[in-house]
Amino acid sequence: METLRLYDFLPSGNGYKIRLLLTQIGMPFERIELNITKGETRTPEFLSKNPNGKIPLLEIEPGKYLAESNAILLYLSEGTEFLPYDRFLRAQVLQWLFFEQNSHEPFIATSRFLISILGKPEKHQETMKSRLDKGYAALKVMENHLSDRSFFVGDRYTIADIALFAYTHVADEGGFDLTQFPAIQAWIERVKSQPGYITIHQE
Amino acid sequence: METLRLYDFLPSGNGYKIRLLLTQIGMPFERIELNITKGETRTPEFLSKNPNGKIPLLEIEPGKYLAESNAILLYLSEGTEFLPYDRFLRAQVLQWLFFEQNSHEPFIATSRFLISILGKPEKHQETMKSRLDKGYAALKVMENHLSDRSFFVGDRYTIADIALFAYTHVADEGGFDLTQFPAIQAWIERVKSQPGYITIHQE
Repeated sequence: METLRLYDFLPSGNGYKIRLLLTQIGMPFERIELNITKGETRTPEFLSKNPNGKIPLLEIEPGKYLAESNAILLYLSEGTEFLPYDRFLRAQVLQWLFFEQNSHEPFIATSRFLISILGKPEKHQETMKSRLDKGYAALKVMENHLSDRSFFVGDRYTIADIALFAYTHVADEGGFDLTQFPAIQAWIERVKSQPGYITIHQE
Repeated sequence: METLRLYDFLPSGNGYKIRLLLTQIGMPFERIELNITKGETRTPEFLSKNPNGKIPLLEIEPGKYLAESNAILLYLSEGTEFLPYDRFLRAQVLQWLFFEQNSHEPFIATSRFLISILGKPEKHQETMKSRLDKGYAALKVMENHLSDRSFFVGDRYTIADIALFAYTHVADEGGFDLTQFPAIQAWIERVKSQPGYITIHQE
């Protein structure tokens, strides 16, 4: 089998999802770092690989690409313990993956990007308040769900946890106060104690 | 088997995705209309069904709920001609479903909501320009992809087409000019000619 190639940006939570899963599955991969703040995902060469100009991008074999972090998680976790086989449990994993990309990441990840990666929150002040409100709404949904559960689906660690963990555990870097969410904090510690856990800074 | 129950809002593209697929599969369902502009998805009763307070919501059997339009599409299309069986084709369907929820719907659907459903674009003028720019970026990715293809994945009509069609074919209601995208326009006509097609206004 070809070695998987991951186009990535180390501070990216979306990239981290894939690094974390591949490490926990124990699947070797080559990481290619692209600095998204320097336009390295907007070059003609990269756009020929992913016309949407975003990392992470997985090169499954030469010339065969897959984009979208959560689609990559689903592709890689097929047949592993990280994706349930049961039809309804699997549907619930999908539900949380789409929640993450539509109700969570657009507010929590982008706040962190503006504040801690670009370092220019003042340029976007008119939208920061709305991002915080919507991000906190997503965190409340998560807190409520985790109040009587250990993990998001089926009481087992799955890619739903990986997808939601990526930006939640660094939400403070986007101006979110997690101390008011005890169930989320306990879940973050449970995720960190999983076998094969790596931090977002580890290559 | 229990009759499926769909919590829905007729003008919603996300709700329309499910109505369209269920009609094309030929699966009967009961539709429950909730007016999202009147807070009907924010009542304690509805929040007990979907804590994220959004339609569409599918009640698979009494008390068993599934949220997120694209998760519902995947759940319902399993084993049908609308979802490929091949692992990489299926991954590409997932890729487009996440693209839709992260790079398309937040800009194209929300512009339509503010202009044509709420009728209050002036309240959000500072964000309308950014929505238009990002929505046009998504439409360009679609136009490029469709320039030498009939459908999004595997040259067959799948739930990737349903998900992207829902808000694209009414993008003009959000201030987008589709006349500059001939491949998208031709694809819209191909989707409209599929067996069992219903419009977004049909219950």
